[in-house]
Amino acid sequence: MDIAIVGLGLIGGSLLRALTAAGHHVTGYDADPTTRDQASAAGFPVAGSVPTAISGTDLTILAVPLPALPGVLDEMTDYDGLVTDVTSVKRPVRDLAHRLRRFVGGHPMAGKETSGFAATEATLFDGCAWVLTLEPHETDLSDWLTLARLFTTLGARVVPTTAAEHDRAVAEVSHVPHLFAAALALQLEGNPLAGTLAAGSFRDGTRVAATRAELIVAMCGGNKAEVSNALSRLIGDLEQMRRHLESEDLTPTVRRAGDLRRAWPAKSGHIRELTPTVDALLDLGRNGGWVTAISDNGEVEAAGN
Amino acid sequence: MDIAIVGLGLIGGSLLRALTAAGHHVTGYDADPTTRDQASAAGFPVAGSVPTAISGTDLTILAVPLPALPGVLDEMTDYDGLVTDVTSVKRPVRDLAHRLRRFVGGHPMAGKETSGFAATEATLFDGCAWVLTLEPHETDLSDWLTLARLFTTLGARVVPTTAAEHDRAVAEVSHVPHLFAAALALQLEGNPLAGTLAAGSFRDGTRVAATRAELIVAMCGGNKAEVSNALSRLIGDLEQMRRHLESEDLTPTVRRAGDLRRAWPAKSGHIRELTPTVDALLDLGRNGGWVTAISDNGEVEAAGN
Repeated sequence: MDIAIVGLGLIGGSLLRALTAAGHHVTGYDADPTTRDQASAAGFPVAGSVPTAISGTDLTILAVPLPALPGVLDEMTDYDGLVTDVTSVKRPVRDLAHRLRRFVGGHPMAGKETSGFAATEATLFDGCAWVLTLEPHETDLSDWLTLARLFTTLGARVVPTTAAEHDRAVAEVSHVPHLFAAALALQLEGNPLAGTLAAGSFRDGTRVAATRAELIVAMCGGNKAEVSNALSRLIGDLEQMRRHLESEDLTPTVRRAGDLRRAWPAKSGHIRELTPTVDALLDLGRNGGWVTAISDNGEVEAAGN
Repeated sequence: MDIAIVGLGLIGGSLLRALTAAGHHVTGYDADPTTRDQASAAGFPVAGSVPTAISGTDLTILAVPLPALPGVLDEMTDYDGLVTDVTSVKRPVRDLAHRLRRFVGGHPMAGKETSGFAATEATLFDGCAWVLTLEPHETDLSDWLTLARLFTTLGARVVPTTAAEHDRAVAEVSHVPHLFAAALALQLEGNPLAGTLAAGSFRDGTRVAATRAELIVAMCGGNKAEVSNALSRLIGDLEQMRRHLESEDLTPTVRRAGDLRRAWPAKSGHIRELTPTVDALLDLGRNGGWVTAISDNGEVEAAGN
């Protein structure tokens, strides 16, 4: 395929490497000239503007932060290729993307503590979950399958889900855990004895508190409603645990949590063929499954529950 | 020294190995005959009862869970050696230990996911923080220094603090993090899509939820008042974060949490000599410091802030 990638940070730059290695013709662009120079110096074709980068391509991947998306979309008004993105919230992007002819929202659950083009790796997506949003009566199924095929060839497990279900799930398992980590870390304020006694449970429970504050606030702020709901539910659970400390009733709750944690992550389970309808795909995602491959003749292979 | 260790699980059994390797004469005892056989088979002297194990020793280390302590103490009424323990809450032990002639509470912040004699290691305490409680007008300073010397020779960083300050700090950085991990893990209940999308922040934030439920409940239940206080404070912080999601005011809080996490753990700082008074030692602990060594002539070397 002829592909443009707008934004060459950790995700966009790694995609530039991975898709080029997979035999596609990929052109990159980044608003930052230094990043463009780095990508160029690494041997990749780099354009000097969004219109130049996307001109004549079949697919454009938007790998810029959410606040930068409206500006990029302004430069794509005439584009008739397929468009996807990689941002960590999907409802706001869905709203913005109504301006595009063909769009499927995406979110690769890949990352690491470092960022920028210098941190990019062609293998970043191997084994990661990659959400591709599928909205009944809105997303074109054949566009969805094109992207599912492309990203499964990079080793990703492609998860079909709606933007709304995605945003709720990531609030629970990704955004709120960053706020929990921050709350635990804040206990060290003026409390050096606690810092000395802190060991493994503190180290792991607070690791992501060291993520750049701007990233945490952008993730949570971009998904405000769901983060707020998830926080409310969890605050209720913590209040119940606090009451149960008194009544000695904590054991079943803690045991259930341990069982759930030990069963995670789910095994791939039975690999099977799936008839690619919107309903069948959304059911697969809701049940914790994913697409592992799409064959040349369009057969969909699915795994997990 | 002539030392008895009562309880040969992960901590007691590792102490049996470490103190024997350090040249002490150590006798072990465990209520479980299989554990006694394992320790015997590993070449250590093992007694058949508490009174036999402790008879004639200078020091007894109680390495049994909190609920088993009263029963062991019943068998030690005539003992006039020094006694310490390794349980993770110190105020309930202090109350029980009023029956002993000489007692200093202890808590090595060492552990791993596995337990039992089979998991023991002579090097388990190398570099770990080891709380030794120091109560003004109650703890004998020379007994305290004897233990501080013994455990620093195993590589531990000995932290002087009162039982009350210890219990508050471990509620914050150890007990409550287990409940936070459990609350995050419970979100997977009936929610397989969330399990598929969960990645690094969930993995680390929930790791200790897989600890045996009985251990978590015993830790938190044994330190109820402080765990309840710490939970209340943290619930307040999370509620404030939730309000700040709306007002866009989250950044300073998250940035402060990141700064605190990146500054943890504190560097050893300036190594210095310390005059061993109760006040000077408690100040050291409160400021995040610890004892690194006690020389032959009783000089105390301190590190950290």
